[in-house]
Amino acid sequence: MSDTIKVMKTVFVILDGLGDRPIKEFKGKTPLEAAKKPSLNSLATKGITGMMYPLGVGINAASDTAQLTIFGYDIEKEYFGRGPIECLGINMELKENDICFRANLATIHDNKTILDRRAGRINSTKEFVEEFDGLEIDGAKFLVKPATGYRACIVLRGNGFCERVSSNDPKKDGQFALEIKPLDNSLDAKKTAAVLNKFIELTNQKLNQNKKNIELRKQNKPQANYFLLRGAGKNHSLPTFFEKFGLKAACIAGAGLYKGIGRTMGMKVIEVEGATGLADTNIKAKINACIQALKEFDFVFLHIKATDSFGEDGNYLKKKEFIEKFDKELAPLLKQEILIVVTGDHSTPCSLKTHSGDAVPFLMHANGIRTDNAKEFGEQACMHGGLGFFCGKDVMNIVTTTLGIQKKRGE
Amino acid sequence: MSDTIKVMKTVFVILDGLGDRPIKEFKGKTPLEAAKKPSLNSLATKGITGMMYPLGVGINAASDTAQLTIFGYDIEKEYFGRGPIECLGINMELKENDICFRANLATIHDNKTILDRRAGRINSTKEFVEEFDGLEIDGAKFLVKPATGYRACIVLRGNGFCERVSSNDPKKDGQFALEIKPLDNSLDAKKTAAVLNKFIELTNQKLNQNKKNIELRKQNKPQANYFLLRGAGKNHSLPTFFEKFGLKAACIAGAGLYKGIGRTMGMKVIEVEGATGLADTNIKAKINACIQALKEFDFVFLHIKATDSFGEDGNYLKKKEFIEKFDKELAPLLKQEILIVVTGDHSTPCSLKTHSGDAVPFLMHANGIRTDNAKEFGEQACMHGGLGFFCGKDVMNIVTTTLGIQKKRGE
Repeated sequence: MSDTIKVMKTVFVILDGLGDRPIKEFKGKTPLEAAKKPSLNSLATKGITGMMYPLGVGINAASDTAQLTIFGYDIEKEYFGRGPIECLGINMELKENDICFRANLATIHDNKTILDRRAGRINSTKEFVEEFDGLEIDGAKFLVKPATGYRACIVLRGNGFCERVSSNDPKKDGQFALEIKPLDNSLDAKKTAAVLNKFIELTNQKLNQNKKNIELRKQNKPQANYFLLRGAGKNHSLPTFFEKFGLKAACIAGAGLYKGIGRTMGMKVIEVEGATGLADTNIKAKINACIQALKEFDFVFLHIKATDSFGEDGNYLKKKEFIEKFDKELAPLLKQEILIVVTGDHSTPCSLKTHSGDAVPFLMHANGIRTDNAKEFGEQACMHGGLGFFCGKDVMNIVTTTLGIQKKRGE
Repeated sequence: MSDTIKVMKTVFVILDGLGDRPIKEFKGKTPLEAAKKPSLNSLATKGITGMMYPLGVGINAASDTAQLTIFGYDIEKEYFGRGPIECLGINMELKENDICFRANLATIHDNKTILDRRAGRINSTKEFVEEFDGLEIDGAKFLVKPATGYRACIVLRGNGFCERVSSNDPKKDGQFALEIKPLDNSLDAKKTAAVLNKFIELTNQKLNQNKKNIELRKQNKPQANYFLLRGAGKNHSLPTFFEKFGLKAACIAGAGLYKGIGRTMGMKVIEVEGATGLADTNIKAKINACIQALKEFDFVFLHIKATDSFGEDGNYLKKKEFIEKFDKELAPLLKQEILIVVTGDHSTPCSLKTHSGDAVPFLMHANGIRTDNAKEFGEQACMHGGLGFFCGKDVMNIVTTTLGIQKKRGE
């Protein structure tokens, strides 16, 4: 007789933008295929592999929609825009129905031309934004918090506002800043657009007088004197990951967006020193944090960002090297008796320097689960994997049935 | 020129709960992979294989919903609960809108604690239930028939009743019996719950005075003195399998549920002596019945149960041996010039002792259809099969187009 399977704990690793295309300099291998990666190859050999389309076959996914889908959220019904996720990412305390935005501080000319959408890539917006935190205009309260680098998060709180407004970001330097417009004829949308335009006008005036900006002007450097808002979304609390799957979950990530995704799902975000979301991130510390978290949590979502950033730079060599570095640090996790999943949230081919809808390699290992013939983790190997091709929305079904915790449909 | 393909007859075999996971004692093979099965391997070699997810990728399916889906029924629209299927399984004559239940006879203490949900696993409920068949309470007529062992089927017939009521089964021994409650605020639901609670109260009183129970009490054995009802469903006649596909179909099965599934689809259920739905079932007789049925029918659904039962027991050795026994008896069917399909309705991994959403191996053979590289029938071989991965809802499309009888979509 078989012993009943012990319900295992799970570590779910997302290497952002992992999937890629053949690189001539790698003799037609992808960065993942070209990388030396004994840990990942051993998982692929002992476990099962496949190819995953995060949002559907050939669909080009953003990280937030892809990851929420992979973790079992229906983005048609449960995605409220990037704004709330970014605000949660910097740990703002949101209320139900808050209207949330991500923002850049930009450099604007008096004639309203955007000279630099990133204000010379300033390191921090703290000294620019703090005077606006708590600002009230026409019944709207604005919460304004610094985020990474030239970024900020803005929340509009009050009655009768909504998220159906356009962005003022022309998306290109040298263009005029846009007016924020209501996206429908409702009073809410008109009122929201009006108060946002007032906010932008007022803050622009004040930023022009900001001490730091006066200094920058003197040095002939780009000022941080204009808010570009996008990603408008109304905050709604969603069913938590625990409510959906009965799994107590933690999230370990460097960059704010991914912490925000974790918080959106009600996961406990574990802050790890040295986790930056950049190539210099302390992978060892993140893996250690994973192992620690397994004591308290059933499910740990580990997010690693730099694979995507190198893809967007077209830097296939660094992408390969970063995968090698990750693989080396992964080793201690292989000694845990867990279900381990490694995949990406989308492909970011170095040849495209942006996301693509190419399928993403997927691997899963635990003792006693099915295996296939794959001997390595890579795009070609996974194409022939024993899980076949599937979609992001299927992932949590695969995980929960592998764990043996999914309820039967029917009687 | 090719000859036009002759429209073949089909035998569709479902080995219940066939799919499994690697077994250490089988050196990492599954029971199906470890079994000696020359007939199935020959079909896989000459035919085409694949992997099938009955209800969708990774979804954990029950037998009734899975099988109806595989045979082309949309369970979202065409599944009315387990009750009607169980009642059809014991060949009750149902009317449209009958409210149907499956029931156990249980042992209840005077303080309403369920001592044994299966009343000591009595062999038959006949002597207990027959006095209630035809009972009328408040305008409801109850039909009560014995089913296998400690089971019974109950139909509530009358105007203004509905299936939206809860079960009184606490699902565990040692718990109080539950009150049946309406699942919504409708008058129908309230009236149904009320009459069912009366039925349960009344039958409990009468069962306590049942001759057989008095005897059991004297022997200090568990009495069969309480009805536990579940699987409430309203009977609706569905389009028949013949109406859907133009194929005159028969069903050969041992256990009641599967006969009920056959009857739900309007298939002719052929009773076979020695077909028990258990490990001792007469497979030879069922295969013979298949061959006989092919003279009269276009499509024969052959259901074999014990693979699932052994999976639920975690008995991988018996599961393997039963597959070997089935394979041996299958041989005569291979001489028929037919389309033969062999698959499962879900996986029942011995390590889980319950159903899982793991994909199910699928094979199909007929002269002239496509083939692949598979040389055996098993989970790993089918992962790489020529039909790829597909879902239960796709199966009848594959079958009918293989037969060349499917209409074109579009013009």
